[in-house]
Amino acid sequence: MERFKLVLQYDGKDFCGFQIQPNKRTVQGEVEKALEFLLKEKVKIYASGRTDAEVSALAQVAHFDTEKCVDEKKLEASLNAILPEDIAVTSVQKVDNSFDARFSVKRKTYQYRFYVSRYELPLLRGRALRINDYADVSLMNKACKFLLGEHDFKSFVARKSGKTDFVRTIYDAKIVELDDGMFAFEITGNGFLYNMVRIIFGTLIQVGYKKIEPSKVKDIIDAKDRTKAGKTMPAFALVLKNVEYL
Amino acid sequence: MERFKLVLQYDGKDFCGFQIQPNKRTVQGEVEKALEFLLKEKVKIYASGRTDAEVSALAQVAHFDTEKCVDEKKLEASLNAILPEDIAVTSVQKVDNSFDARFSVKRKTYQYRFYVSRYELPLLRGRALRINDYADVSLMNKACKFLLGEHDFKSFVARKSGKTDFVRTIYDAKIVELDDGMFAFEITGNGFLYNMVRIIFGTLIQVGYKKIEPSKVKDIIDAKDRTKAGKTMPAFALVLKNVEYL
Repeated sequence: MERFKLVLQYDGKDFCGFQIQPNKRTVQGEVEKALEFLLKEKVKIYASGRTDAEVSALAQVAHFDTEKCVDEKKLEASLNAILPEDIAVTSVQKVDNSFDARFSVKRKTYQYRFYVSRYELPLLRGRALRINDYADVSLMNKACKFLLGEHDFKSFVARKSGKTDFVRTIYDAKIVELDDGMFAFEITGNGFLYNMVRIIFGTLIQVGYKKIEPSKVKDIIDAKDRTKAGKTMPAFALVLKNVEYL
Repeated sequence: MERFKLVLQYDGKDFCGFQIQPNKRTVQGEVEKALEFLLKEKVKIYASGRTDAEVSALAQVAHFDTEKCVDEKKLEASLNAILPEDIAVTSVQKVDNSFDARFSVKRKTYQYRFYVSRYELPLLRGRALRINDYADVSLMNKACKFLLGEHDFKSFVARKSGKTDFVRTIYDAKIVELDDGMFAFEITGNGFLYNMVRIIFGTLIQVGYKKIEPSKVKDIIDAKDRTKAGKTMPAFALVLKNVEYL
């Protein structure tokens, strides 16, 4: 048995998320179907984590095992030839059997993309969330520093999450400028809770709109109470930027 | 009579170009229709220049004259409320009658967007041209310096152009890195000939693929012969980035 690491890019728009579900179009479903067609055997892929419906990935990582003899470059080319145009495999690499795309994750980085304008902008619509032009992005950036370090993020988790351990470490969090007047809230951590980035961004928007002070983010973390944080912002503007391993 | 300057952003994908044409969907047609609806009078807009079918603009500039009493902010809001989602007006500003969106142009900047990959990438497809991964972007950047200054660009104009004066001045030309692994050939000049940026980029690709040396660009300019330059690259990856005035 050989283990292979896949790096996947996908546009989340037309997917019901990463995880396979019956009668739904999912990233996992499409990739497994393509692998099964090429390898002529049942294949299961394991990703660094699921992404929700509409969430995109620049570089999601997954692994799979196969008994078949696989040439990395040929498999990469064949997969890209048969995968739908909203998924690409940017790398196929043979890895040690101890590598686990989910459990060996060291750091993940997400971007929540947005822009500040009174009107929807044609070149950003569908890719970034519009927030009103009275938002102060520098205040949002100031609030980011209160996220750094190890915290219990219970205030920033969807209530339906089945988790009981809400402690995560955030290594970096800041507002970055992208092209065409777009910004992103970029956050790197050892892991993220269900809807965590989208809820944190909903809270940062309140800071931007001066409804709460930047330092209030610290109090919201300390409260461990979902009702103190902001709304869960829409999924389409969230991008899994990269996944780093030990 | 008052003159107003409009700044327009549009996604060129579903337009048959800027210039109005009967029975075709054009940017000018949509903006004039919206202005006529709001101002209750026939309005003609004059842009910094046409853009071809599929070409996008981050900040195209146009002017129009009206006898009506217009509030800049109200007109901006009303226009954005009724324009289709692939056009936005990012600014409406009353200007002196001597301002002419076409004839007062000092500099224009275009970006030709591309990426280097063996496969189409889901997050860049439709927005940037894919070129093969053996292209050397640093050679393309080296070739850019031969474009700088005042030259006769007859080698880089579509043969059907009716122009006879091919002399233009290029102030800046370089390869820049954008987000998500995208690059752009960014060029600033006092004006551009028909298809000029797309033909120059077709020539730079030959440099990237090592079919010609970077310095060959100088010889191609000197030849004043369209057949010496590269192919006209597709329109969809071209963006009018901004227009500067005296």
